[in-house]
Amino acid sequence: MALYEAKAGYSRFEVDLVNKPEWFARDVNPASKVPAIAYGGPQTSPDQPSPLSTKLTESLVLLEFVADLYPNSSIFPTDPILRAKSRFFIDAVTTRFLPPYMGPIAHAKSFEPFWDALDSIQRLLPEDKVFAISDEFTVADMAIAPFLGRMEVWMKNDIGAYPKGEGLKAAEYFFNGERFKRFVRYFDAIKARESYKHTIDMEYLRNAYAARFEPLRAKLQEAAAAAANANATTPTGKTASS
Amino acid sequence: MALYEAKAGYSRFEVDLVNKPEWFARDVNPASKVPAIAYGGPQTSPDQPSPLSTKLTESLVLLEFVADLYPNSSIFPTDPILRAKSRFFIDAVTTRFLPPYMGPIAHAKSFEPFWDALDSIQRLLPEDKVFAISDEFTVADMAIAPFLGRMEVWMKNDIGAYPKGEGLKAAEYFFNGERFKRFVRYFDAIKARESYKHTIDMEYLRNAYAARFEPLRAKLQEAAAAAANANATTPTGKTASS
Repeated sequence: MALYEAKAGYSRFEVDLVNKPEWFARDVNPASKVPAIAYGGPQTSPDQPSPLSTKLTESLVLLEFVADLYPNSSIFPTDPILRAKSRFFIDAVTTRFLPPYMGPIAHAKSFEPFWDALDSIQRLLPEDKVFAISDEFTVADMAIAPFLGRMEVWMKNDIGAYPKGEGLKAAEYFFNGERFKRFVRYFDAIKARESYKHTIDMEYLRNAYAARFEPLRAKLQEAAAAAANANATTPTGKTASS
Repeated sequence: MALYEAKAGYSRFEVDLVNKPEWFARDVNPASKVPAIAYGGPQTSPDQPSPLSTKLTESLVLLEFVADLYPNSSIFPTDPILRAKSRFFIDAVTTRFLPPYMGPIAHAKSFEPFWDALDSIQRLLPEDKVFAISDEFTVADMAIAPFLGRMEVWMKNDIGAYPKGEGLKAAEYFFNGERFKRFVRYFDAIKARESYKHTIDMEYLRNAYAARFEPLRAKLQEAAAAAANANATTPTGKTASS
């Protein structure tokens, strides 16, 4: 998103996270995590990275790296106070929004901590600006955008470890309710960016999430059914403890 | 440290973390955390912050804010790759070094995870440079310096929830052993900075840590003695489970 917005020249390579190519940890990121950038050195195909390029990792580090490379793009404000506010927003995304983010979908946990986290981010959104910091789309917005896109996919497709129907209910609560009006307006502005459309592949995410979380839901449902069954065969109606 | 190194003009106010002044949350940081900066607005005494100044918080945000305010100081490199490496180092301090940092002193946990964390930071230190990124003392170094100073205080004064003597043993292992030679050389270079001497008050830290962790050690020792006692009165010599 940052590279696209900054109109950088770059070659893109999608790493299959389930079957990572063996050269990735060896030649790009020993921690074997995405995203990563190979910068400088001779022109090569992205799957044959040169030892002469500098390898950089950690998504938030890369966001500021792109902003530093293109100081005249509008992806990062130049005013020190706005830069500090951008970093404060990114810190809030990391420390408040992300921790409960996977709770409902991966662990069938209550949505409440997630709603509270979204609320705390919403309180940082200025009423009179389009984006988190200003009317420009900046690295602050790019730090949360991919997660919002993923959230929309799992909610609207009702994919998750939570019981069937809970995702659609959550989508209704978030996208059409009163509580998150400012947030939804913000998300709409993000979704209008070409860089967002270019980097968030809804169809791919839907399939990947379904493959990962539908078996999990089935397993949890089986466990719940077994518990209910054991319960029904206990004369007192209490849960069998044996 | 950053303000001092950048030769900024500033007034300092130490917030007593146990008895925070009531104006601090109201007028400076609603989250009531330190450090915080009030920037701009009319000149006032630091304990009477003006509503017209901008209030900024989160130590890592403040480090880069000071660097942005003083782009000609040497506290942050100007080269985009070195800037990225600085941020990667700071991320490693936050995500690898800090999580196990309080384990031994506050929870009497094993030192092993802490040594491993120090090791992973040590591996990031270049052999041929004085500091983490270059021969300059930068925000990357300032992100870890205060924690190293605190570590030295609790180790060398043997203060912590761990049994008496373990702190001195740890100090011997870290400061005089083979494993952390590069790290100790790095820490020595940090300790030589005037900005470090100006901001790390060893005597204050020693007293604050003693007040906080000595009662904790006494409590844990009492609990251990009670358990041993119960054990001794059990004829089989096994721990009493009642």
